[in-house]
Amino acid sequence: MELIFLGTGAGVPGKERNVSALALNLQAERGTTWLFDCGEATQHQILRSPVKAGKLEKIFITHLHGDHIFGLPGLLSSRSMNGARDPLTLYGPPGIKAFIESALTLSASFLTYPLDVVEIEAGVVFADAQFTVTALPLTHGVPSFGYRIEESDKPGALDSARLAADGIPAGPWMQHLKRGESATLPDGRLIDGAEYLGPPQKGRVLAIFGDTTPTPNAAILARDADVMVHETTLEAAMAEQANRHGHSTTHQTASAARDAGAKKLIITHLSARYDREGAEKLKAECREIFPNTELAHDFDIFSL
Amino acid sequence: MELIFLGTGAGVPGKERNVSALALNLQAERGTTWLFDCGEATQHQILRSPVKAGKLEKIFITHLHGDHIFGLPGLLSSRSMNGARDPLTLYGPPGIKAFIESALTLSASFLTYPLDVVEIEAGVVFADAQFTVTALPLTHGVPSFGYRIEESDKPGALDSARLAADGIPAGPWMQHLKRGESATLPDGRLIDGAEYLGPPQKGRVLAIFGDTTPTPNAAILARDADVMVHETTLEAAMAEQANRHGHSTTHQTASAARDAGAKKLIITHLSARYDREGAEKLKAECREIFPNTELAHDFDIFSL
Repeated sequence: MELIFLGTGAGVPGKERNVSALALNLQAERGTTWLFDCGEATQHQILRSPVKAGKLEKIFITHLHGDHIFGLPGLLSSRSMNGARDPLTLYGPPGIKAFIESALTLSASFLTYPLDVVEIEAGVVFADAQFTVTALPLTHGVPSFGYRIEESDKPGALDSARLAADGIPAGPWMQHLKRGESATLPDGRLIDGAEYLGPPQKGRVLAIFGDTTPTPNAAILARDADVMVHETTLEAAMAEQANRHGHSTTHQTASAARDAGAKKLIITHLSARYDREGAEKLKAECREIFPNTELAHDFDIFSL
Repeated sequence: MELIFLGTGAGVPGKERNVSALALNLQAERGTTWLFDCGEATQHQILRSPVKAGKLEKIFITHLHGDHIFGLPGLLSSRSMNGARDPLTLYGPPGIKAFIESALTLSASFLTYPLDVVEIEAGVVFADAQFTVTALPLTHGVPSFGYRIEESDKPGALDSARLAADGIPAGPWMQHLKRGESATLPDGRLIDGAEYLGPPQKGRVLAIFGDTTPTPNAAILARDADVMVHETTLEAAMAEQANRHGHSTTHQTASAARDAGAKKLIITHLSARYDREGAEKLKAECREIFPNTELAHDFDIFSL
C-alpha cells in the first residue's frame, strides 16, 4: 500500500506543485489503484509517475472546487482512448454526476469502459471484505468530505511449529484451520483452528481529507489512523485568512492529528505563496505540535 | 505577431506534446494575446511560455472535442484567482456556453473579469479596424471550424524627403496628409496627401484550422495566407484511417496549402504514435508537395 502524491498545491498550478490529486496504490492488495481528487493535468502527472490510469478502480472526490475536479474529463477520456476496459467507479458530492455528464456529452466523448458515478452522503460509501470507506462532511465553502479508509483485519497465520509439535499432519483440513474453524483429522481428533492461529494482523487505517477549516469530524475520520493526509494551506500566523477561505493552518492541522491519535500526518495542499523553503517552515510548524509530520511534494511516495 | 505553440499533439497528452493550444501574440499590435483551442493543461504550458494569461483578450475554439477544450475551465478560473481584470471573449461552436457554464457553476468558480461567450456560426465572428476573423466549417465528426485572421492594410508612410523637396512645412495639416487626405497650407496651397504616401503596407493573413478531413473550405480560409496552421494527424499511407476519424494526412494537408496559395504551412496535431523522428518524416512528406512546410513542437515560436 503506497500513497503517491500527484498534486500538492492549492488553487492554481505552479511549476513545483500541481493542483490536488493523490493515488493510493493497492496493487499488492487488489491489483488496482484508487485516486483521491483529480485536479487539472492529473493525467499528465500520472504519465510521470508509476500510476497506470488503466488500473484505476475508484476515484473519490472530496469536493467540487475546480482544483480538485477539472482533471476528471480528460483523465476519463484518455483512459478510454488508451483502450481501458476495466470498470471505474467515481464517488463525489452531489453535482459530480452533472459535471461529468456535461463535459463528456458536450465534448462528444465516449468511454470504452463502464463508469459508475456515485453521489455520496455522509456514511459508508464503499465496503467489501477487504476495505471500508466512510465519508464525513468537513467545513468548507462548498460541501467537502473527508474519507476514512479501513482495511479489514487479516486472520493470524497458522503456527506450523505448534501444529508439528501436536502431531497434526498437513491435509485438506488445513483450509479450515487457517480460517480459525474446527476440523476433524483422519485419526478422529477434533482440532480447533483458532488455537493455532497467531494474533490477527490489524488492518491499516488511512484518513484523506478534503479542504476544511478545523472540524470536529476530523477526530472521527482520523481516529488512531496510521496515516492522516490533511491540507495545510497557510502558516500558523495566518489563521484568520485561512479559516475565512475554508482552510487550515499548520497548527490547526497538527492539532487535529494529535487530538485524533493519528500515528503519522502528511501535509499537502500548500498555498502557491510557499517555495521549497517556505514549505519546510510549514512542516516545522506542524512538528511543534505533532512531531511525526511529513511534507508531501509532487511525486512523493509514502509506503504504509 | 508571433505564433506560440502550446500543444501540438492529437487526442491524448504525451510527454513530448500536449493536446491542442496555440497562442497568437499580438503584444506589438494591440497589447494582447489570442488563444486558439485550449486542451487540458494549457494553463500549465502557459506557465512555461512567454504567454501571460492575464493578457488574453480572445479565445477561439475550433471544436468541442475534449483535447481542444478541457483546459478552459481551469484557465478561466486560474486567470481569475491570479487577479485578472481585463475582459475576455470566448468564441466557439454551439455547446461551448453550456460547457463553460456547467463547469464554472458546479465548481462554484467565480470570475473577477467579464467573460463573454459567443457561439459562432459560419462567417465573420469578429472585426474591428485592425483585424477581421472569419470562421468556416470544416469536415470532422463534430462541428469544427477553421479561422481566417486578416490584418487590415496599413496606409503607407508619408515621404518626408519629398515633402521637404516641395517646401511643405510641418504643422497640424500633417495629420490629414498622413491619412491620404487633402489639406490647405498657410500659404494657400492645396496639397493632396495621397501623392506623398508610400505604398500601403499589406496586412498579414493567417489561417488556423481545427481538426478536419480535406475540405473545399480550406481554399477559402487559407487563400494567399502568409501562414496556414493545419492538422496533420497521420502519414500519407494512412489516409483511410485518418479520414475515417475526421483527420488529414501529410499529403492532404500539403495539397490544401498548395491549392490555397498559402505562403507557409505549419503542421501540428500529430498522432501520439510519432516520436521526434517520426514527426520529422511527416514534415518531409509534406515538403514533397509543399516545400515551405514547418513542423510545430510544443513551445515553438514562429514570427510573422
